[in-house]
Amino acid sequence: MSEKVLIIGAGPAGLEAARTVADLGYTAVMVEKRDRVGGTPDEFHYAQLTHHFRDSEEAMNELAAAATASANVELLTSSQVAALEGEVGNLTATIQNGSGSKNIEAGAVILATGFQHFDPGRETQYYNYYSFPDVITIADLEGMLKAHQVVRPSTGQPPERVAFIQCVGSRDRQIGNEFCSKVCCGIASKQAIEIRQQLPDSRVMIFYIDMRMYGYWENELYWPAQEQYRVNYVKGLVSEILPKGDRLLVRGEDTTMGRPMEVVLDLVVLSVGMEPSAGTRAMAATLNIEQNKYGFVAAGGSTRIDPVATSRPGIFVVGAASGPADLDDTFSSAGLAAARAIAAIRRAG
Amino acid sequence: MSEKVLIIGAGPAGLEAARTVADLGYTAVMVEKRDRVGGTPDEFHYAQLTHHFRDSEEAMNELAAAATASANVELLTSSQVAALEGEVGNLTATIQNGSGSKNIEAGAVILATGFQHFDPGRETQYYNYYSFPDVITIADLEGMLKAHQVVRPSTGQPPERVAFIQCVGSRDRQIGNEFCSKVCCGIASKQAIEIRQQLPDSRVMIFYIDMRMYGYWENELYWPAQEQYRVNYVKGLVSEILPKGDRLLVRGEDTTMGRPMEVVLDLVVLSVGMEPSAGTRAMAATLNIEQNKYGFVAAGGSTRIDPVATSRPGIFVVGAASGPADLDDTFSSAGLAAARAIAAIRRAG
Repeated sequence: MSEKVLIIGAGPAGLEAARTVADLGYTAVMVEKRDRVGGTPDEFHYAQLTHHFRDSEEAMNELAAAATASANVELLTSSQVAALEGEVGNLTATIQNGSGSKNIEAGAVILATGFQHFDPGRETQYYNYYSFPDVITIADLEGMLKAHQVVRPSTGQPPERVAFIQCVGSRDRQIGNEFCSKVCCGIASKQAIEIRQQLPDSRVMIFYIDMRMYGYWENELYWPAQEQYRVNYVKGLVSEILPKGDRLLVRGEDTTMGRPMEVVLDLVVLSVGMEPSAGTRAMAATLNIEQNKYGFVAAGGSTRIDPVATSRPGIFVVGAASGPADLDDTFSSAGLAAARAIAAIRRAG
Repeated sequence: MSEKVLIIGAGPAGLEAARTVADLGYTAVMVEKRDRVGGTPDEFHYAQLTHHFRDSEEAMNELAAAATASANVELLTSSQVAALEGEVGNLTATIQNGSGSKNIEAGAVILATGFQHFDPGRETQYYNYYSFPDVITIADLEGMLKAHQVVRPSTGQPPERVAFIQCVGSRDRQIGNEFCSKVCCGIASKQAIEIRQQLPDSRVMIFYIDMRMYGYWENELYWPAQEQYRVNYVKGLVSEILPKGDRLLVRGEDTTMGRPMEVVLDLVVLSVGMEPSAGTRAMAATLNIEQNKYGFVAAGGSTRIDPVATSRPGIFVVGAASGPADLDDTFSSAGLAAARAIAAIRRAG
């Protein structure tokens, strides 16, 4: 019998889960395959968050400090879970790192292995991400925004005309990602505002199918982007990107105006969606829990309404490991999973 | 010093919070102003949930049973919180009911007072909700779907042609509700599918600005609605509803086709958005916690990323009391708040 909670992944979801477990007087053991915490926001040098344009690095540092400062949180970096045996209350995880392997006893497990940005080279060669240096992704752009160095990679100069293309790798049956990635409309709008702040002479357009600015993103991001920052939203389908001198020609259809559209641009940003991370796929197999057809962890089953339950008792899933999630989703589900994990341990004890 | 958690409201958010508090070995006292639990889904006789078309009554009964079966959960119905004095760890609530008032000691409070459906009579008389019996809301329709009695109220006969109008009371600066209500696209699509199931000869249209089917609602609701159930989605603005014989004439603009639109219908369903419930407004004042400009409880402050924190330590907010929320949001935030409330009590102890 162990009262420890094993948390796999030390990004926002894992850190918040660990903090909550510790706050409740239990011990969390975090296993992270990278050599540092912070997850995707850290790895991709996120600039500001959609939460009131909060600095991402600062927010992640606060979160990490809150989690790792506790004597009840143990952190194993550069480590991976190789196996998990036993039942809720009596689980044994085999942890591998460079120097060998060891066993950890735990009562419950929280899987916080997150997502990865869709790779636009995989199926959508027509956007020419890997051929044209000035076609980048929202993940690439985060780093530029953080460094205050938004430039055309081909010239190193600031772009005058920038466009975002939404739903790259999402809502797309051809590549099998029928789901909506939920956050890309908000992220692109936030980034468009940041570009306009950093490059006041720039012009920024967003080509979209539906602008999914749910809840307060509508008033906090979408309206200011249009009214204060003059971001131009165009409901349209982009069919191809071609070279045009040293710039880019975007060709498609403006569906509101019902006419073909051709726009010359300096920088095109692909709003790539979420896919399950390699860690999520690998851990789902290692932990022997059900995945949905997209490879995310199946949460809640077919009848229960439980955003953190997996198919295996005592194993809970948080954040984007079970599908597209924003930071509010991630923090909330981390708290619920921490409570569920402890409740499961209490019942088993 | 009290280790009890006072939970105000016994809808989905409050019930899930109470269950989680009890599962963690603490005591929850639920105060509910109605004479029964279940909140808005119970009051408005919701039919099926967007979660895999789960029967709402059955799901709410399970949730209620899980919460109220615990010896650690005390339920006070037909009761209201009239005052709250003290600090986290040492709070005293004055509870009023028909027979008088009494004091309850608590260590922390979770506010779960939810939303109310926007009243389409208030500002949007042009949709004639109160004049035309065959103009109803998604809240009205839930009860009809649950009873398998989808009819034109004017005749009692099943409608042949039905249309939904999205964003009634949302994304609307004129009435001051600039936010998006988040769930109405999903609810309308679910209801459209249910109508087509119950009335296979019907035709159903949805007039929308943006179809905000985020995450898995895209593949679980939006695509089946179109492909399997032949629901017709029209990006368009509806300017008015007029009588046309004993039917209704909807007039507006099809923005995709770029032309005026006139459609004759038997039943028009207004997709009314979320507003803070009377209880949310009243309790925010009683508890002396900040509200945002829409009257919802301000959550997370301006810099913290904390979906359940309010401006007063030891008071937490869950579900739709802080703004538009779906059931996953509600359940997740309930879990986080339960954990935060107990952590606050532990720190104060």
